Amino acid sequence: MPKVAVIMGSKSDWPTMQETTNVLDALNIEYEIHIVSAHRTPEKMIEFAKQARSNEFEVIIAGAGGAAHLPGMVAATTTLPVIGVPIQSKALNGLDSLLSIVQMPSGVPVATVAIGTAGAKNAGYLAAQMIGITNATVAEAIGSFRDEQAQAVIESEAHLHE
Amino acid sequence: MPKVAVIMGSKSDWPTMQETTNVLDALNIEYEIHIVSAHRTPEKMIEFAKQARSNEFEVIIAGAGGAAHLPGMVAATTTLPVIGVPIQSKALNGLDSLLSIVQMPSGVPVATVAIGTAGAKNAGYLAAQMIGITNATVAEAIGSFRDEQAQAVIESEAHLHE
Amino acid sequence: MPKVAVIMGSKSDWPTMQETTNVLDALNIEYEIHIVSAHRTPEKMIEFAKQARSNEFEVIIAGAGGAAHLPGMVAATTTLPVIGVPIQSKALNGLDSLLSIVQMPSGVPVATVAIGTAGAKNAGYLAAQMIGITNATVAEAIGSFRDEQAQAVIESEAHLHE
Amino acid sequence: MPKVAVIMGSKSDWPTMQETTNVLDALNIEYEIHIVSAHRTPEKMIEFAKQARSNEFEVIIAGAGGAAHLPGMVAATTTLPVIGVPIQSKALNGLDSLLSIVQMPSGVPVATVAIGTAGAKNAGYLAAQMIGITNATVAEAIGSFRDEQAQAVIESEAHLHE
Amino acid sequence: MPKVAVIMGSKSDWPTMQETTNVLDALNIEYEIHIVSAHRTPEKMIEFAKQARSNEFEVIIAGAGGAAHLPGMVAATTTLPVIGVPIQSKALNGLDSLLSIVQMPSGVPVATVAIGTAGAKNAGYLAAQMIGITNATVAEAIGSFRDEQAQAVIESEAHLHE
Amino acid sequence: MPKVAVIMGSKSDWPTMQETTNVLDALNIEYEIHIVSAHRTPEKMIEFAKQARSNEFEVIIAGAGGAAHLPGMVAATTTLPVIGVPIQSKALNGLDSLLSIVQMPSGVPVATVAIGTAGAKNAGYLAAQMIGITNATVAEAIGSFRDEQAQAVIESEAHLHE
Amino acid sequence: MPKVAVIMGSKSDWPTMQETTNVLDALNIEYEIHIVSAHRTPEKMIEFAKQARSNEFEVIIAGAGGAAHLPGMVAATTTLPVIGVPIQSKALNGLDSLLSIVQMPSGVPVATVAIGTAGAKNAGYLAAQMIGITNATVAEAIGSFRDEQAQAVIESEAHLHE
Amino acid sequence: MPKVAVIMGSKSDWPTMQETTNVLDALNIEYEIHIVSAHRTPEKMIEFAKQARSNEFEVIIAGAGGAAHLPGMVAATTTLPVIGVPIQSKALNGLDSLLSIVQMPSGVPVATVAIGTAGAKNAGYLAAQMIGITNATVAEAIGSFRDEQAQAVIESEAHLHE
Repeated sequence: MPKVAVIMGSKSDWPTMQETTNVLDALNIEYEIHIVSAHRTPEKMIEFAKQARSNEFEVIIAGAGGAAHLPGMVAATTTLPVIGVPIQSKALNGLDSLLSIVQMPSGVPVATVAIGTAGAKNAGYLAAQMIGITNATVAEAIGSFRDEQAQAVIESEAHLHE
Repeated sequence: MPKVAVIMGSKSDWPTMQETTNVLDALNIEYEIHIVSAHRTPEKMIEFAKQARSNEFEVIIAGAGGAAHLPGMVAATTTLPVIGVPIQSKALNGLDSLLSIVQMPSGVPVATVAIGTAGAKNAGYLAAQMIGITNATVAEAIGSFRDEQAQAVIESEAHLHE
Repeated sequence: MPKVAVIMGSKSDWPTMQETTNVLDALNIEYEIHIVSAHRTPEKMIEFAKQARSNEFEVIIAGAGGAAHLPGMVAATTTLPVIGVPIQSKALNGLDSLLSIVQMPSGVPVATVAIGTAGAKNAGYLAAQMIGITNATVAEAIGSFRDEQAQAVIESEAHLHE
Repeated sequence: MPKVAVIMGSKSDWPTMQETTNVLDALNIEYEIHIVSAHRTPEKMIEFAKQARSNEFEVIIAGAGGAAHLPGMVAATTTLPVIGVPIQSKALNGLDSLLSIVQMPSGVPVATVAIGTAGAKNAGYLAAQMIGITNATVAEAIGSFRDEQAQAVIESEAHLHE
Repeated sequence: MPKVAVIMGSKSDWPTMQETTNVLDALNIEYEIHIVSAHRTPEKMIEFAKQARSNEFEVIIAGAGGAAHLPGMVAATTTLPVIGVPIQSKALNGLDSLLSIVQMPSGVPVATVAIGTAGAKNAGYLAAQMIGITNATVAEAIGSFRDEQAQAVIESEAHLHE
Repeated sequence: MPKVAVIMGSKSDWPTMQETTNVLDALNIEYEIHIVSAHRTPEKMIEFAKQARSNEFEVIIAGAGGAAHLPGMVAATTTLPVIGVPIQSKALNGLDSLLSIVQMPSGVPVATVAIGTAGAKNAGYLAAQMIGITNATVAEAIGSFRDEQAQAVIESEAHLHE
Repeated sequence: MPKVAVIMGSKSDWPTMQETTNVLDALNIEYEIHIVSAHRTPEKMIEFAKQARSNEFEVIIAGAGGAAHLPGMVAATTTLPVIGVPIQSKALNGLDSLLSIVQMPSGVPVATVAIGTAGAKNAGYLAAQMIGITNATVAEAIGSFRDEQAQAVIESEAHLHE
Repeated sequence: MPKVAVIMGSKSDWPTMQETTNVLDALNIEYEIHIVSAHRTPEKMIEFAKQARSNEFEVIIAGAGGAAHLPGMVAATTTLPVIGVPIQSKALNGLDSLLSIVQMPSGVPVATVAIGTAGAKNAGYLAAQMIGITNATVAEAIGSFRDEQAQAVIESEAHLHE
């Protein structure tokens, strides 16, 4: 079974990152959750990232806010694809999180998604799409989800007209 | 061989997106380049995206600037992972491109990288990392690149001290 | 009778876009409401836009938030004028919506109005003004509205002084 | 013949606004150019706007930069549709121009286009689209332009592959 | 007695602008309040501004939000000093108001103060300071206010230490 | 004769602030220029500001860039009106200068003008308008300047049509 | 005992700055609290800063919001290190405070920390780190705090998995 | 002798960071320069930071641009004070660098200075001020520098008047 790591720097990021695991659950993708802080447990973070491939993770999803270093630092220490979720921060509404995650230098990309819960959900879908490059079951699960999503739009229009 | 599609909305994006193909060349990843405009050839774009999986692409890289709709619209029409490169725009320096690409709604992610040429290079590396989830040759190529990159930093320090 | 299409990507945009239809009601302009998502039903959106002129719409009003692609994509697929309403988004307060809608490339304009409800109302007035270029009844209706609006300012001053 | 007014607050806006008149020329739409400053000739501006409809203008295009009041003030004084072009300003790159033009209060819309020359061109196309609601000749001219534009994309791809 | 005009575009600006009149009351400066809208009653606004000097106003304070044109348009139509108060707007928190007011072109300044209530209060103090250039009574009133203000800081420190 | 103080924190601000003195020269207003740095000569700045009124200055114009504290600190130490000119800074184009000058707390206003040279010119005009509250000669000089300015717009239109 | 000065411009900054003193308490660092306003008691501020070293302070922590001049002005008047805490402001969420504090000119640095309460806490830790350069007791206290902090992350992960 | 570490992520940061070492040279403070990349040599960076105190560094100055993680990651791995210099980035002019460095979470401060060369110089001065808490020689060197700086302002005024 494909395996995704969902990591975050603080328990306070969990309400956002739970949206990610909900998506992974819905798509039947196995995952592990870890609290790994770039700033409070830097060596544990390095260790985690170094062993991620041999631990048979296929994708890492990292949520972080403010001066959000976790996604980029993990990306620097593994060659697995890393998806960064900018947590909506208090003062700057996640603009700081977004820029800290997306503006990575050449050679060390982070696949960045939207600020906040929409991004957290999309991190789950994006991980699935990456796995779905070669995993037909996962690819089909996304295909089905997309069909349902389109159907929901069509039904919402019907409701609006009622 | 893995196959990546590198698409852009206009020939004027080519100087940036060439950085992407240089990386793919260096990593021995096959690719096709297409100019497909969300705004000028929308139906061709939809057609391209719908057939991308059956055309055996594994990842799509889309560069766009300003009200940058190409990455998101392609992502909406395929379940392959789509990487968005925000081209540095004239008036707003790519902030408009970045927000237009990254702030996608739930269900349709775009893996967004940095504004401009650093992002264009990273789109190539990120595509390779996605392919490298299951393709050991590509994963090793990235590993080697990372080693060279680290070596270059160490050497640059030596030069500084000379 | 002139006919306006009021479209939006999601039912969650309706509280904002209802301000548009209230204005159209007040000006006696016929309209249809559709939920058409650029990202969730892209082909339906293309179909809608391609047939808009033959369906005798005269103006299309499209509301969208975040990476707001609906107005621009519809504008790319019809030669009718398209008015874009930037929905106030959660993290970035609609700045992302605004830039995604207004910064269109040469050849495919979107007539952009203000973020949020003021913009939604103005989309209705602007559609009426476009129709009023040749439709004297609608032009007069706007003229009357403007007079009432001026009168309301004068009366509000009187109330302030009471 | 349909007639468009192209106005600007200062001669220094002409290099940008000339892009507008080039488009109108290409689409065979008649126009007049006026320098009318909200801040330096406010009464002349009011007079111009009040008489615009009786002078048989159908659309007004107004370019302005910085604290850009011309489009909004003209819009306040006529019921013709007014298109605002945010000129790229020196310090803030046109962000000030954009916000000053687009954030109009309820009841007085300005149809805002992109910052700078892309916006100036689009002002011409948007004016044509407004006129083309009822004017078949103009609508067809835009249709032809769009076809050429699509063709140019297809040809640019061919050149890229050479 | 010196006389200040306090104007605003809409009754909804009154809760902010009342801070201005509170300051003027405290400093014993006479004032008149008017609702004069740049966008809804443009000719009344021009008329007001043209007659301001002959009506023996000495300073005009104008509050406006969003695409805030009132202060600049009044400044364009009188040679009295005009103070602009950027009202805190809903989506962009007054950044649009601030830029629309402060970025005036050469020849037509607006004396801009802070966004929101702090700015509204300061508009009153600034008007007093302008009048106080030659009016010793008003200058002394400001001097006394400043002494009280300094005293309040010193006392607040004492309270903190209790 | 009315007397204005034009101060700046560094010689590097002089190319901008010279625009101010050019305007004052044109309006026949006496002035003194001083380099007084909030950060490098804070006590000299305090001394200057405390004695400004007794030195018979009527208005103080202060230019500063980046963390621009000079206008606000001088305003804190005198009850004369202080005009702040945000110098266009290197990295942030004067947005830092603008916010550092305009966002003053209640009780200590700075009359802020536009970023850069337009603002520097307007500081001169605004000082003249403040003096012109009671000084008819200066008020007339501004009136004449405004007439010339309007005439220049009218002539520039004529040139455009040639 | 090392001694830190915690100063702020207004009592309204106390809820934020109390986070600083909580940290200093926890690290057993002595401190004094003062309300010293750059804008309301400028001379008292200068006096405070001039005597800070002879009063045996080792670090000064200054919190300020909006056009935040206190940290920079104190830094200009002492050679002790000054830490600036950008208070989260009402309209611009502390972006104005941040830029007003951090963008200091060459020669007069302010050690700037994050906006709001996170920054206020960090001001305490940073002051301790500065003192800890030579004070082993304080350095050890920080070391212990860091260990506890890391432990808390590890425990929060355990809780998440329960 | 006190010893400062000046580190940067890339040789391309050297033209900026050389301003730091020029200041340290002028103040007679010993330093070492290292190129240590958070993203390209993460483990070397961790190693460097862990040994910094035992290597007898007293302050660490770290320059970084874009998604600038070096200062924060080093700060996470040592209890020495870390000064962060936001390098002026290409697309976003250093706003990304600034936010990535300054918005650190509670417990792990980075002493942030201004964007670009002014900040690089100030990093040198700030390091000296930290050392000068207990080192009288260094404190006096800064005092002398400040006197020269004040003198330079006074002389520049004299030159302006010549």
